[in-house]
Amino acid sequence: MTQRLPGTLESVGEFGLVAALTARFAQGSDVVLGPGDDAAVVRVQGGEVVASLDMSVQGRHFRLDWSTAADIGHKAAAQNLSDINAMGGRPTALLVGLGAPPDLDTAWALEFADGLAEEASMLGASVVGGDLTRADAITIAVTVLGVCEHGVVRRSGAHPGDVVALAGRQGWADAGYAVLARGFRSPRVVVDAHRRPAPPYSAGPEAASLGATAMIDVSDGLLQDVGHLATASGVAIDIESARFEVAEPLQAVGAALGVDPRRFVLTGGDDYCLVAAFPPHVTLPPTWRPIGRALRREAAGTVTVDGADYADSAGHQHFR
Amino acid sequence: MTQRLPGTLESVGEFGLVAALTARFAQGSDVVLGPGDDAAVVRVQGGEVVASLDMSVQGRHFRLDWSTAADIGHKAAAQNLSDINAMGGRPTALLVGLGAPPDLDTAWALEFADGLAEEASMLGASVVGGDLTRADAITIAVTVLGVCEHGVVRRSGAHPGDVVALAGRQGWADAGYAVLARGFRSPRVVVDAHRRPAPPYSAGPEAASLGATAMIDVSDGLLQDVGHLATASGVAIDIESARFEVAEPLQAVGAALGVDPRRFVLTGGDDYCLVAAFPPHVTLPPTWRPIGRALRREAAGTVTVDGADYADSAGHQHFR
Repeated sequence: MTQRLPGTLESVGEFGLVAALTARFAQGSDVVLGPGDDAAVVRVQGGEVVASLDMSVQGRHFRLDWSTAADIGHKAAAQNLSDINAMGGRPTALLVGLGAPPDLDTAWALEFADGLAEEASMLGASVVGGDLTRADAITIAVTVLGVCEHGVVRRSGAHPGDVVALAGRQGWADAGYAVLARGFRSPRVVVDAHRRPAPPYSAGPEAASLGATAMIDVSDGLLQDVGHLATASGVAIDIESARFEVAEPLQAVGAALGVDPRRFVLTGGDDYCLVAAFPPHVTLPPTWRPIGRALRREAAGTVTVDGADYADSAGHQHFR
Repeated sequence: MTQRLPGTLESVGEFGLVAALTARFAQGSDVVLGPGDDAAVVRVQGGEVVASLDMSVQGRHFRLDWSTAADIGHKAAAQNLSDINAMGGRPTALLVGLGAPPDLDTAWALEFADGLAEEASMLGASVVGGDLTRADAITIAVTVLGVCEHGVVRRSGAHPGDVVALAGRQGWADAGYAVLARGFRSPRVVVDAHRRPAPPYSAGPEAASLGATAMIDVSDGLLQDVGHLATASGVAIDIESARFEVAEPLQAVGAALGVDPRRFVLTGGDDYCLVAAFPPHVTLPPTWRPIGRALRREAAGTVTVDGADYADSAGHQHFR
């Protein structure tokens, strides 16, 4: 399946690589005009497009000795697709910028592209365009476009009394990071969760159709991202720790590394699970597990665990 | 006007800088939801969105000793807005990724943002979202969204017999680059053209409404980009050099540096002028100057100057 294109980015050149890359990006039914022109054209139903852009930098967001090119492609797509999920939407198209050193093997770029396209195609989204340039470190910029067929769910609509619920795995990627950072490669299931997150893609549109009042995806850390939702909504949120089942692999990592595994769940990011608020009368399907409640507005933006501050609630700050 | 935010990206932190940045991005009438959520929501008329992504890297696409932060912001916006222009469209929204070293002065980032937003606002487009991350070199990724109210003009529709015409300045930015590369700072008018290109923004939609059959913007070099249009359309194109008036500042630079100033016009990029093909019966307004003609398909993709190969037609290859 993999087209052979031996050489480095420098020896193959920009146009050769672009041709090889675009040849492997299948175009779905939402695409009017795919790669190869000055811009792509994507069908938009409902008169509104949802759009988000994320960057990842080698050494900071990924490491070539921890993840394969395909892993990095899957993750770059997943973190962007997750942003559309968090609006209650369905992603339709991705634009991908790749900055890379001239001596990078073209096989790396092609495997990266395959991983990215594979993740996108799970949701019927297509890679419709992008840019390729020279950079000292591998730098990835992905823009994702989508449509919200069940309405847009912002961060800002939660009311006191709303049930706060979570969809997807949480804490697994952070446990995987902890393992990799100590030089280990197992348990494989958490290492894989770090390498290729598995966001709960269907849960976003589901929440929108259930009448979710606010939603966010957890990319920086559960308590931090719940804090963003609380601040935007002007509510406080209390998380009930008894609602979390700490999965066996997280317990194993906690025991091996001598850390409380609840920390992975409460402060970890990178699983791209969703947190949403629902009016109390909504009957939640099994996808959505209640984990807390939105409270009175006097302490807006505050997130507590079992009614108290959580000691280690600092999340990911990109310049610190 | 400029909000004070003393310090570096590291001392201010991601969230502090994002707050200061988003506060200065005015939101136009096409914006349903601007910065601050998981994704932005932009109104799309006609059921199709046009989208393009470009990256720029410090030292490769811009130099901090040649251009101010505001210049770099203007140019990053211009090169993306130009892609929508080249489809015959009107840009509505930009998403901006900025990778930057932690010791970068926040004033630089704010001035960059102001330049970017100023260029976009000339066309009524808004900066609706983005990402900020740490990187060793300043790395800019911009995605632009737009709508084509007069229909989409691709690169691929030119027919033999079509008139090939140009809108905007061509060769000025390349003359400016030549001047800067030799350590000079004048003539100021070409140096400014390199720092802040002035794309012919109204010409793209105008060409679409006139019935242009194909269009491209000149970013890498006139002959090279005309070659892309010729290849996509399956035609040959002959450029008539007598059609070009080599402007006085270009002649001055040519004389000072001992080079043929026609070279700036024929191989220069970065002015973001437009080249379009029109059926021969179309009466062109003064915006569009005929520069050549599309010819029989036997030599598809070939670009000649006055019927012959041009010696120095190599354009910009990003990895060579």
